[in-house]
Amino acid sequence: MSASYPPALPRHIVEATVRRAFEEDLGQAGDITSQATIAPGATAVARINAREGGVVCGLDCAKMAFSLIGPGLEVQAYVSDGTTIEAGTDVLEVRGNARMLLAAERTALNFMTHLSGISTLTSRFVAETEGTDAHICCTRKTTPGLRALEKYAVKCGGGHNHRFGLDDAILIKDNHIAVAGGVAAAIAAARAFAGHLVAIEVEVDTLEQLEEALAAGADAVLLDNMDEPTLTRAVAITAGRAKLEASGNVTLERIAAIARTGIDYISTSRITMAATPLDLGLDIAIS
Amino acid sequence: MSASYPPALPRHIVEATVRRAFEEDLGQAGDITSQATIAPGATAVARINAREGGVVCGLDCAKMAFSLIGPGLEVQAYVSDGTTIEAGTDVLEVRGNARMLLAAERTALNFMTHLSGISTLTSRFVAETEGTDAHICCTRKTTPGLRALEKYAVKCGGGHNHRFGLDDAILIKDNHIAVAGGVAAAIAAARAFAGHLVAIEVEVDTLEQLEEALAAGADAVLLDNMDEPTLTRAVAITAGRAKLEASGNVTLERIAAIARTGIDYISTSRITMAATPLDLGLDIAIS
Amino acid sequence: MSASYPPALPRHIVEATVRRAFEEDLGQAGDITSQATIAPGATAVARINAREGGVVCGLDCAKMAFSLIGPGLEVQAYVSDGTTIEAGTDVLEVRGNARMLLAAERTALNFMTHLSGISTLTSRFVAETEGTDAHICCTRKTTPGLRALEKYAVKCGGGHNHRFGLDDAILIKDNHIAVAGGVAAAIAAARAFAGHLVAIEVEVDTLEQLEEALAAGADAVLLDNMDEPTLTRAVAITAGRAKLEASGNVTLERIAAIARTGIDYISTSRITMAATPLDLGLDIAIS
Amino acid sequence: MSASYPPALPRHIVEATVRRAFEEDLGQAGDITSQATIAPGATAVARINAREGGVVCGLDCAKMAFSLIGPGLEVQAYVSDGTTIEAGTDVLEVRGNARMLLAAERTALNFMTHLSGISTLTSRFVAETEGTDAHICCTRKTTPGLRALEKYAVKCGGGHNHRFGLDDAILIKDNHIAVAGGVAAAIAAARAFAGHLVAIEVEVDTLEQLEEALAAGADAVLLDNMDEPTLTRAVAITAGRAKLEASGNVTLERIAAIARTGIDYISTSRITMAATPLDLGLDIAIS
Amino acid sequence: MSASYPPALPRHIVEATVRRAFEEDLGQAGDITSQATIAPGATAVARINAREGGVVCGLDCAKMAFSLIGPGLEVQAYVSDGTTIEAGTDVLEVRGNARMLLAAERTALNFMTHLSGISTLTSRFVAETEGTDAHICCTRKTTPGLRALEKYAVKCGGGHNHRFGLDDAILIKDNHIAVAGGVAAAIAAARAFAGHLVAIEVEVDTLEQLEEALAAGADAVLLDNMDEPTLTRAVAITAGRAKLEASGNVTLERIAAIARTGIDYISTSRITMAATPLDLGLDIAIS
Amino acid sequence: MSASYPPALPRHIVEATVRRAFEEDLGQAGDITSQATIAPGATAVARINAREGGVVCGLDCAKMAFSLIGPGLEVQAYVSDGTTIEAGTDVLEVRGNARMLLAAERTALNFMTHLSGISTLTSRFVAETEGTDAHICCTRKTTPGLRALEKYAVKCGGGHNHRFGLDDAILIKDNHIAVAGGVAAAIAAARAFAGHLVAIEVEVDTLEQLEEALAAGADAVLLDNMDEPTLTRAVAITAGRAKLEASGNVTLERIAAIARTGIDYISTSRITMAATPLDLGLDIAIS
Repeated sequence: MSASYPPALPRHIVEATVRRAFEEDLGQAGDITSQATIAPGATAVARINAREGGVVCGLDCAKMAFSLIGPGLEVQAYVSDGTTIEAGTDVLEVRGNARMLLAAERTALNFMTHLSGISTLTSRFVAETEGTDAHICCTRKTTPGLRALEKYAVKCGGGHNHRFGLDDAILIKDNHIAVAGGVAAAIAAARAFAGHLVAIEVEVDTLEQLEEALAAGADAVLLDNMDEPTLTRAVAITAGRAKLEASGNVTLERIAAIARTGIDYISTSRITMAATPLDLGLDIAIS
Repeated sequence: MSASYPPALPRHIVEATVRRAFEEDLGQAGDITSQATIAPGATAVARINAREGGVVCGLDCAKMAFSLIGPGLEVQAYVSDGTTIEAGTDVLEVRGNARMLLAAERTALNFMTHLSGISTLTSRFVAETEGTDAHICCTRKTTPGLRALEKYAVKCGGGHNHRFGLDDAILIKDNHIAVAGGVAAAIAAARAFAGHLVAIEVEVDTLEQLEEALAAGADAVLLDNMDEPTLTRAVAITAGRAKLEASGNVTLERIAAIARTGIDYISTSRITMAATPLDLGLDIAIS
Repeated sequence: MSASYPPALPRHIVEATVRRAFEEDLGQAGDITSQATIAPGATAVARINAREGGVVCGLDCAKMAFSLIGPGLEVQAYVSDGTTIEAGTDVLEVRGNARMLLAAERTALNFMTHLSGISTLTSRFVAETEGTDAHICCTRKTTPGLRALEKYAVKCGGGHNHRFGLDDAILIKDNHIAVAGGVAAAIAAARAFAGHLVAIEVEVDTLEQLEEALAAGADAVLLDNMDEPTLTRAVAITAGRAKLEASGNVTLERIAAIARTGIDYISTSRITMAATPLDLGLDIAIS
Repeated sequence: MSASYPPALPRHIVEATVRRAFEEDLGQAGDITSQATIAPGATAVARINAREGGVVCGLDCAKMAFSLIGPGLEVQAYVSDGTTIEAGTDVLEVRGNARMLLAAERTALNFMTHLSGISTLTSRFVAETEGTDAHICCTRKTTPGLRALEKYAVKCGGGHNHRFGLDDAILIKDNHIAVAGGVAAAIAAARAFAGHLVAIEVEVDTLEQLEEALAAGADAVLLDNMDEPTLTRAVAITAGRAKLEASGNVTLERIAAIARTGIDYISTSRITMAATPLDLGLDIAIS
Repeated sequence: MSASYPPALPRHIVEATVRRAFEEDLGQAGDITSQATIAPGATAVARINAREGGVVCGLDCAKMAFSLIGPGLEVQAYVSDGTTIEAGTDVLEVRGNARMLLAAERTALNFMTHLSGISTLTSRFVAETEGTDAHICCTRKTTPGLRALEKYAVKCGGGHNHRFGLDDAILIKDNHIAVAGGVAAAIAAARAFAGHLVAIEVEVDTLEQLEEALAAGADAVLLDNMDEPTLTRAVAITAGRAKLEASGNVTLERIAAIARTGIDYISTSRITMAATPLDLGLDIAIS
Repeated sequence: MSASYPPALPRHIVEATVRRAFEEDLGQAGDITSQATIAPGATAVARINAREGGVVCGLDCAKMAFSLIGPGLEVQAYVSDGTTIEAGTDVLEVRGNARMLLAAERTALNFMTHLSGISTLTSRFVAETEGTDAHICCTRKTTPGLRALEKYAVKCGGGHNHRFGLDDAILIKDNHIAVAGGVAAAIAAARAFAGHLVAIEVEVDTLEQLEEALAAGADAVLLDNMDEPTLTRAVAITAGRAKLEASGNVTLERIAAIARTGIDYISTSRITMAATPLDLGLDIAIS
């Protein structure tokens, strides 16, 4: 269900985000506990280890943290983003200056536990859709400042990405329809406004609106809060004329049923907003 | 249990964080759906409304979003950060340009739902400690880039803040103790290193280590993963000589029992990392 | 041919770009000529006037310049971005502190002459396509740091936007096809990788490749460097199954002929890279 | 006519400008086409090749792009900035990760084609002045955000730089003269205000004003929009007492005649604002 | 001796520098003392008062601090930058929210005491040169990050500015002369390299080198570490052919003697690097 | 008196501060003197040498400067921050490209002379307290933008750090006491507000206030402007119940007497605000 190749994060995103995290955690004086108690030249070996199973995500952030903290740390990743691991698996090893390792530890872990939590929860949703053509996708409900990373984590978990922002696709909602004077008018305005590589999706509440959207040539239709029988009819009505996306009240319990309606995409903010961190720890031996 | 005055966020933190969120969501072209379908001069009234009860947090972020999006929006908050509200409560009203309102909507909500989720969960933990002297506090396990906001949300929920970073307090852990040559040596090194306004806390696993830490003059001791009987004994042993903090496996179910041991602080990453967003929505009427 | 509503620039883009321009022009000491010769309290009236006819673009940048330079300047625009004006037209008036006006003059003009040059040249290309269904669009060949502004200027001139970057649409070129193992394989890989709102375009050199791309379900096909008879045949072959884009050697002389082939989009870097500034000047009267 | 040593760009300027260009082009998801179709480990060889002759400029930007995109690319430049090349010349070769090469390609080319266009046009103006003492120089009419790069490109083309901004030299224009109470008063005020390393130039429209400026001790005089006979007389009147700069209506056709008047500097915004990109392409072979 | 009009700081410099100062002082939690003890709505009146006499500088920084800290503070300055005041003088008054006043107090004062210290010391050096034609000027020995502000403070104290950086004037020192092959060769190379508005100064140790520099057409000559008789001879030799600058061992005691030699400029890093803060305090009454 | 291990500066602070210093000094064109006179490939050896004795500080800044200026310079430090050196000592050697060395020279020196000046003056204050238990500490009166570096320099000189900002410790002053309703009320409010790792200090003017502060459980008390007999009584009254800090009129002449009163900390802004630069020079040999 996932892409043949794993996705990749632009380096400037990773760098900027990790820099900000260090500014928060190191402040103006750095790790004063280690400065007080550990010799500047002490070395250490550290291993990030999974305390529970899941799907790994955020290795580029961890590597960037161990790189930006100072020169000379040697990092070796044992797995890749998107790999499903069991509890006890070693994920990454770092060797070098002990103070640097300790100063970067929490920052590296905060990225990896957060993103791996999203990848892991996404993979659970994806697993429920097995055997269907449904794809799981995220929304714009993401943590401020981390959208690129969280959308990447969704892909690492086997999910797909919805819009990255208000600027890269058109999603016509009730307010737009009301002001524009109907579904057809709104789609026509969108088509006239946007370039040929911008897809147009319309959010509808009823099957009548769906037919109107299809007639007006929407590329995709978001079926908001419909039950499974209605979704099934929507699929039949559409007959491939547009991509269909179901949203609203998407739970792990219900998702298989939604997927079996024949819908193309199921979107949910749960995979980004309700994921709990994957339990990863860092074991360190200072020499 | 909370401070007489609510805490306050530095304006530069709010501004920088909201700017980054807009960069993510507006990209290079802004809200193209609204540009295509809504007249530049259309006006609207929008209300942020609670779909469930909880503790509000993030109003400064929402106000900043409605201010940075462009000039002229009028914002009125009906509650304050830290207010406990019921489902159905209107939280904030904005009037003005419809395109601006729609462009800022998701950004404002993403901040408020995330932070209110943290305040709300914190307040549940705090409620469990009622009648005891225990304070709930957060850790450094926060979302990268949002530490200041999340620590503020903890305070709005009635909790307290642990260190903001590696730089503003000393927390001596097992590695530091091992390398420094024991608890007493580590504390002495910390005391010699740090200024007189930097508190020194030591993490211990046993009551023997606790006694060593107290003898060495620690300001606070973190009791890691101890059960309630052991915590009770620790409180008796300490007899007010240092602040005591319990951590490890702190759940909503267990926290009242921990609090009743007489411990001063109970720290948990759950309130920042496992909170789910508070369900807030924005209702908009475009004219 | 242009959208019913004019496009709009995100405020954060305008602000950041104008700030950088001021850093360049004001340096560490500001406008030392005016500091030496003009009293701090002197006031002035300035008018930006068109020395030649064209399509105006960049008013938000000029307004931002007159706002960021300091408080208190009053700006009134006489036209809107996208307005076609004749030589001699007053575009904008500013009143207030004379030193501020002089310090912001060149920065405001550099934005407006550059962007209006692009809008004006675009409008000439668009005019040549009148009576056909062809749309003019830009490419990723833009001035580094000004892509959002230049793509906006293209829209103000009646053109359309291609991709904003490598991240918001898929454009499969010969290298991708070669490595992926053919047009169909590349499109399948793209479809599996990208979300449902990401359009897929394929660049082809021959009509055989066009048929392959259509069969594989491309949303759009870029016909590279084809002559008019070939384009005409491509339109017939495609029969509405995908959007067709012509590119390569697109000149003002040739564009009408291309448009008459029935092609949907004609892309050219000339409108962004070969436009000359529109001649605008600022007349100032200091009192 | 050019300096014995080529000029050099400060590294922080190059780095900041290339970073911004990548933010524009890679966005939050990077090159999704290559991620979908090209294996992460694929390697390639790419060559930037001149499709037309001209003067090369921007190699530091291209190198920075291939460096910032990620580690490990090997870059070899075959020429230097300022080198005059013929069509077909290879300018630069890069070897390494195929995805990185493709992701950086357009950014590297956008810098090089833009800057080489300026160097090339400048060199044509310079060539017209051969055999005279006239120097070609640019103005403050530059693309916002690229002033340092464009002024550098002018030097690479054999031209000279005028002021970099309002802060590094004094240029007294009609408004300053009017408010200050005459040419002499304005120059006196400027001399009193500025440090001893700040040159003072006065813009004049008539030979009477020229004499006034010379009498008042101007370091340089800008002769605005004068015809060749008047320029010739200005040179005679001045007799080396100040540098003379001609400006206004400076075309390739007219410049030799201006240069033969004996003028020291000829300034024109054409070399920065009316240059078209030099046609450079990147040929890539992916293995 | 000072310019008829006072100099002015570019707003973007003031804003960026004050923002950085707030980031340092407010951190992630802001003024926690005031948050704990002062009601959010309390108001106050504060006055910045001089505990000693001197020359005021930095009012724009103080105003910016009281503006950036939050909306609504009313600031009134009683003097201008460059005003000489006596001990006890009120410099500035602010009214409004008490927490905001206290949060901005130290930042505002740190700017004003530092810059006023420089202005005051500069004015003492300037006073010693009264009755001569000598100007006092600063060097590039300034506090990192504050060059623009410190050079401005020098001007407010009646001094003049040397180069702002390596980029805005040419200063040929012994290493350049040695490598270039002599004074004349170095000046010729500089003249060929730089634009017509860039002044060329040469540093010399002997009168022989001075003659060489004058013969080669230097605009200014820096006489390094010469005694008064030698400086007097240098002035006679030069006879107005170039500006002369004395530097090295410039003390308050010796400067009058240097000035009487007829030298044009006396440069010293003391005015920027050895100034002590002017003693200013803030008196606040909270209501 | 100093910590067993030297303190360390976070790398992101050093990098950001050095970058800003280069932006000031290199501007848009870089070191034009060296570009004009020194061949691009020339190499050099440079040594930073102490012209006077003192305590070295700022080596990380100098190394960062020689690293950020461009690739390939080899730096070797002969001493460490905190080392006391005599006049004539070589501090650091750099080898490599001559232009790079010259371009970074002043920036590297400006950091080292400023910070070493602070370390050196601090060490003089510290030396006066030998044989007592008093520690010297700095205040928040630091140069805007350099607080982290200056506080680090104080530590390198053997001093201690007071608060880094308003956010990391509570310091209750007269205004807070007045508004809160007395010392005890203010301390109680602070205790309720702040986390368990935030120390609370109260500034008092009289011994009565001291007793009140001790009774209310202050962690530290700042005794403002008391003479030695009063300080001695304060020490006796306190009897170890809180840390005592003396401040106000702390001079090198008086400090030993203060230290002998038995006080714990003596704070003074002199060490950061009144230090003069340590005289360091750079000797360079270009080959």
